[in-house]
Amino acid sequence: MDSVYKKSLFDIPDNVIYLDGNSLGPLQKGISEASERVVKDEWGKKLIKGWNEENWMRQPSIVGNKIAKIVGATKNSIVAGDTLSIKLYQALAAAINMRKDRKIILTDSGNFPSDLYIAHGLIESLGNNFELKVVKPEDLITSITSEVGVVMLTHVDYRTGRMHDLEKITSCAQKNGSVMLWDLAHSAGAVPVNLKNCKCEFAVGCTYKFLNGGPGAPAFIYVRPDLIKSCYSILRGWLGHKSPFDFDYNFKKAETIDGMRVGTPPVVQMSILEKALEIWSDIDMRDVREKSIQLSELFINNIEEKCPDVELASPRDPENRGSQISFFYNNGYAAIQALIDKNIIGDFRAPNIMRFGISPLYNNENDILQTVDSLEGIIKNKTWNQKKFLLKKPVT
Amino acid sequence: MDSVYKKSLFDIPDNVIYLDGNSLGPLQKGISEASERVVKDEWGKKLIKGWNEENWMRQPSIVGNKIAKIVGATKNSIVAGDTLSIKLYQALAAAINMRKDRKIILTDSGNFPSDLYIAHGLIESLGNNFELKVVKPEDLITSITSEVGVVMLTHVDYRTGRMHDLEKITSCAQKNGSVMLWDLAHSAGAVPVNLKNCKCEFAVGCTYKFLNGGPGAPAFIYVRPDLIKSCYSILRGWLGHKSPFDFDYNFKKAETIDGMRVGTPPVVQMSILEKALEIWSDIDMRDVREKSIQLSELFINNIEEKCPDVELASPRDPENRGSQISFFYNNGYAAIQALIDKNIIGDFRAPNIMRFGISPLYNNENDILQTVDSLEGIIKNKTWNQKKFLLKKPVT
Repeated sequence: MDSVYKKSLFDIPDNVIYLDGNSLGPLQKGISEASERVVKDEWGKKLIKGWNEENWMRQPSIVGNKIAKIVGATKNSIVAGDTLSIKLYQALAAAINMRKDRKIILTDSGNFPSDLYIAHGLIESLGNNFELKVVKPEDLITSITSEVGVVMLTHVDYRTGRMHDLEKITSCAQKNGSVMLWDLAHSAGAVPVNLKNCKCEFAVGCTYKFLNGGPGAPAFIYVRPDLIKSCYSILRGWLGHKSPFDFDYNFKKAETIDGMRVGTPPVVQMSILEKALEIWSDIDMRDVREKSIQLSELFINNIEEKCPDVELASPRDPENRGSQISFFYNNGYAAIQALIDKNIIGDFRAPNIMRFGISPLYNNENDILQTVDSLEGIIKNKTWNQKKFLLKKPVT
Repeated sequence: MDSVYKKSLFDIPDNVIYLDGNSLGPLQKGISEASERVVKDEWGKKLIKGWNEENWMRQPSIVGNKIAKIVGATKNSIVAGDTLSIKLYQALAAAINMRKDRKIILTDSGNFPSDLYIAHGLIESLGNNFELKVVKPEDLITSITSEVGVVMLTHVDYRTGRMHDLEKITSCAQKNGSVMLWDLAHSAGAVPVNLKNCKCEFAVGCTYKFLNGGPGAPAFIYVRPDLIKSCYSILRGWLGHKSPFDFDYNFKKAETIDGMRVGTPPVVQMSILEKALEIWSDIDMRDVREKSIQLSELFINNIEEKCPDVELASPRDPENRGSQISFFYNNGYAAIQALIDKNIIGDFRAPNIMRFGISPLYNNENDILQTVDSLEGIIKNKTWNQKKFLLKKPVT
């Protein structure tokens, strides 16, 4: 079971305990070389010919298929590109288009605020014929009624790690005739997801968190295979066209998942991401999950024992958590700064949440125990009273 | 005047004559190192702290300001990010929002088809209350009437290099109360543009052509300074929020050009672009223009003399051309393949256009003369009758 621990494949600085993979995954060995190759050998030597000879044009679907394996999606149902905001905008527009007769788009307050902004912007542009209804996560299931056109949710809450039941909610939405759209930002590479079984119509996600694709790595969009051909496209960039090089004056959407591509892909970041995804080829997400729960339980149990002032913000039942443990603590901001000062990297979300992402690919028991020990010492010694921790800005 | 010729700063393979900078600009020396630095030292060593310590968060505006100098825009009026398709979508939505009372969006058939696709997609989503009117470039000025809400044009035609008069058309649009939106894809780094004098409301452009930002480099958007604070935002990603890290549930658009940012920026490509733009710091676009015209005239005169079957597709008057020369030639596809086989790289657009981009930063008289000589030989010897040129796919 320790087979998922592959820290030797990462290039994490010595003495750093990295518990922030829920924000930005670390660098792997070989990425720098892959990046140099695309810059020097492909762009530098092939120049414009890189588009054909180096597969730059097909990369978004090659990468999409690697992601598909990790989130249990059918081949050719995911394409990579743009940012999560853009992919969400496309997916939500397509979802609304499927149920134009219903006016309510349902989401919850555990969603990432940016997802709400994107939804509001889209709805406003559609002439305010639709309404974004935001309920508490615990009121979600009862709010899914036959008046709801689209249910748009983030699977794992970015603050607390609270995880929705993907299949139960999707099934409830579909029983009510609503279209289901999942944001898997904190799920892909973190917890097992089986889009095939889940049967949701749309999903989106990012690759710079648990998939370790690098800062600003491309996002991805999933469309259920039976909907790909006909699904509505709002952002009609040239690479979503079925024959972009015909330079046709009319948009004819590709009948494959390429129809959800927009503009020219970021080839260097795409190559880095492609390389970063190699590590997943022999990883079973169920093993990752098992290890993640072991580490999380160890973390919680030790905190409860050694840091009684620190309160668990994540659900206590591992079934309801993603791969992240959050704690409420009033001196949380300063405590996180003091931990970072000891090369233990977690992060902080206002007003009082300390977040620790857990990736069994590079985190082990020792990391957890050392983190708890350090936090215990920091709290005991009130290290945050030191001026330097009060002055620093939050780590983003 | 040869001061703009900086080929020694480029990493173009020996013996290659590169006349395709209108499609993908070549690699410069130092870029590979800059890319390695951001991957290994910033992402690898700083991890999440890179967002603050390495300025990743501010990079889109730092890069935007470098582009602003090249296109004559005021500081803090341009931000880089996403793709040209996305930036055009944002700009067009903001432009339409300024003149919702008028139903016609005017463009011409010289526009890049993708710009038309994006416009159609946006208009359709707005409930088809607007109409995209496509006229011939020569009918443009007379089509700008007081019924036109937005004039949306590409400055330099991607096929023929035909260039619109930026200031004259903008002034005509504004006299008619229309909002002006320019696509500078083939202009930035190719011809002098002075957005400040032009007074257009919006402009967008890409950076992988004459700005040499690399394959899939981020695009940019310009908003006239007096409109930045109030301009409408349709794609409300978290980094367009005035305080993204407040994780506020309501979108409050940044009052600066950051309001046109969307999602997390592609840090590696942004760093490559930032490095690539350094070369422009001591370049005067008027010198680039003078040299570009010299080289273009030399090209045309020599083709007319030596290749009488090849017909100029670009305007004969340099005032009406960008930094690209195109020729009609029925065997153009095969001729371009035969040139590429001799390491002279231009490209082809169906049905019969041979395109040659001219960048005085790395092209000189010798490149032009050698290209014409080779083309003359290819035509004389009918090299395209060789099977290999008939089988190859078009260079994209």
